[in-house]
Amino acid sequence: MNRVSQKKVLALSGGVGGAKLALGLSKILAAEQLTVVANTADDFEHMGLHVSPDLDTVMYTLAGLNNQEQGWGLAGESWSMLSAMEQLGGETWFRLGDRDIATHLRRSQLLADGQSLTKITDTLCKQLGVSHTLLPMSNDPVRTFIDSDQGELPFQHYFVREQCQPIVKGFSFKGLESARATPELMALLADPNLQAVIICPSNPFVSVDPILKLSGVKEALKASAAKVIAISPIVAGAALKGPAAKMMQELSMPVTADAVARYYGDLLDLFVIDESDATLSDSMIQSGMEVAVTNTIMKSLEDRKNLASFVMHCVGEQ
Amino acid sequence: MNRVSQKKVLALSGGVGGAKLALGLSKILAAEQLTVVANTADDFEHMGLHVSPDLDTVMYTLAGLNNQEQGWGLAGESWSMLSAMEQLGGETWFRLGDRDIATHLRRSQLLADGQSLTKITDTLCKQLGVSHTLLPMSNDPVRTFIDSDQGELPFQHYFVREQCQPIVKGFSFKGLESARATPELMALLADPNLQAVIICPSNPFVSVDPILKLSGVKEALKASAAKVIAISPIVAGAALKGPAAKMMQELSMPVTADAVARYYGDLLDLFVIDESDATLSDSMIQSGMEVAVTNTIMKSLEDRKNLASFVMHCVGEQ
Repeated sequence: MNRVSQKKVLALSGGVGGAKLALGLSKILAAEQLTVVANTADDFEHMGLHVSPDLDTVMYTLAGLNNQEQGWGLAGESWSMLSAMEQLGGETWFRLGDRDIATHLRRSQLLADGQSLTKITDTLCKQLGVSHTLLPMSNDPVRTFIDSDQGELPFQHYFVREQCQPIVKGFSFKGLESARATPELMALLADPNLQAVIICPSNPFVSVDPILKLSGVKEALKASAAKVIAISPIVAGAALKGPAAKMMQELSMPVTADAVARYYGDLLDLFVIDESDATLSDSMIQSGMEVAVTNTIMKSLEDRKNLASFVMHCVGEQ
Repeated sequence: MNRVSQKKVLALSGGVGGAKLALGLSKILAAEQLTVVANTADDFEHMGLHVSPDLDTVMYTLAGLNNQEQGWGLAGESWSMLSAMEQLGGETWFRLGDRDIATHLRRSQLLADGQSLTKITDTLCKQLGVSHTLLPMSNDPVRTFIDSDQGELPFQHYFVREQCQPIVKGFSFKGLESARATPELMALLADPNLQAVIICPSNPFVSVDPILKLSGVKEALKASAAKVIAISPIVAGAALKGPAAKMMQELSMPVTADAVARYYGDLLDLFVIDESDATLSDSMIQSGMEVAVTNTIMKSLEDRKNLASFVMHCVGEQ
């Protein structure tokens, strides 16, 4: 037993991009070392079901059940319910796969029984063989709304139904002020064994911000001795997945990795950018940032593990 | 246009056996002539979904979508949700097919939106191309409980989970006293054009009784000039489907067609028994019953239409 195994790592994640790095981390860290906290501000109630897209994407990914081509949902999924729903004249814009529905039904039922989202997530993860810890950011409802040129849109309406076409003017997170971060997250942030907080290459505005903006989280991050490392979700002026780059443009931000680093500001101890953005590192370092450069594009499982190892190496381990 | 087309027919139905005759009637009667009222006392809430087994069996059957081999559910159904639910450690004793779930999700959502079961049933039927009228017996919740040697069991626990193994001592219909029959059913029973009320070959205790015992229904039936005709669900001392015969035995009733006729009593103008029970007819007639004998076993669509035609012939039409 060496010291490494006692150290703890916290990863903050949205959906797909975050889940990729979380998987890489899970391959090089022991179950008791790694905790992944997922955004729940894009959760929503659909057809009476509680759907937690980011929690599910991370859970399915850690379980090895995710659909890699599609980027969300389960591999080998079938769509019979949705086809029947179309025949019945119901809503079909949110693509609920047949196996995926079991997750939403089970979670909704356990929530109705009074269980916390934390306990339910733990149960579902155990059933799917996920041994690392996955936590929702909060057991309280927080809901992202997009202020857009089409008015205020619930996040999934913007993201899935309107396919990110509306022009973004801003964000609001309803319920955030009264929501509490999960006690397990706050305890981990206060744990002297917490070695690193990794902000995954997720959308800063709608995936990471809801977690960081929970009451007490930023303060706890700053008070912690843990190194805070973010991986840029912007590579060569574009987002690998999702609307982060489009949002930055619409918010009149430069669509660059260093704009993301400036957005996170003094919260970060280190910012990891992709090799294709290596030319940015000099000016970033000159402006006082700690920057590391590596391949951040995770196509293969090897890429995921390599980026995870690189990040842990930056932390001073492995 | 002859007089026949202005006459109206009401069929009272449980699940499978009733749905077969309802289908036969739908093939020989115009859409505006036939109304099928289904039992909703075996409805239940499962995994947060409102499930209406008898309404769905009749609806799927009239739509030509039912699984004929299985006797319930949809033809060509898939079971991905259930297989995933098993992996998640959820309940799987009630077999929810993937396409079937769309019906339950849609109905549950529309109920949550405040729509009546009558309006929802009409919407679902229209979407599935059912042109005859299908009505729930009531928009209010009525729930059958089985008093058994294993205590009081909700109907679906007795019927599906325990596969009718518990010994039946009696029945209770919770909510029945305060439930109102749907206004459309009461209006039809008061309609001078109502020519026949057909009690389908369904379980007298748990499918037909909940309808008949709704406040005002028996009185309206007796006040109506319509001929009341029941088709025996017991053929040659056995039930073709379901626990009717087992229940009769456990309730110390003779397991015979004439015991069913006596159970319905003076509500009936005519009782239809199967050819295989023809020897019963003499003594039944001697005891004052009106009895008709035909083949009541509906294996083919032709059988269904023939029984429907026979019944309508007894009414004095076709």
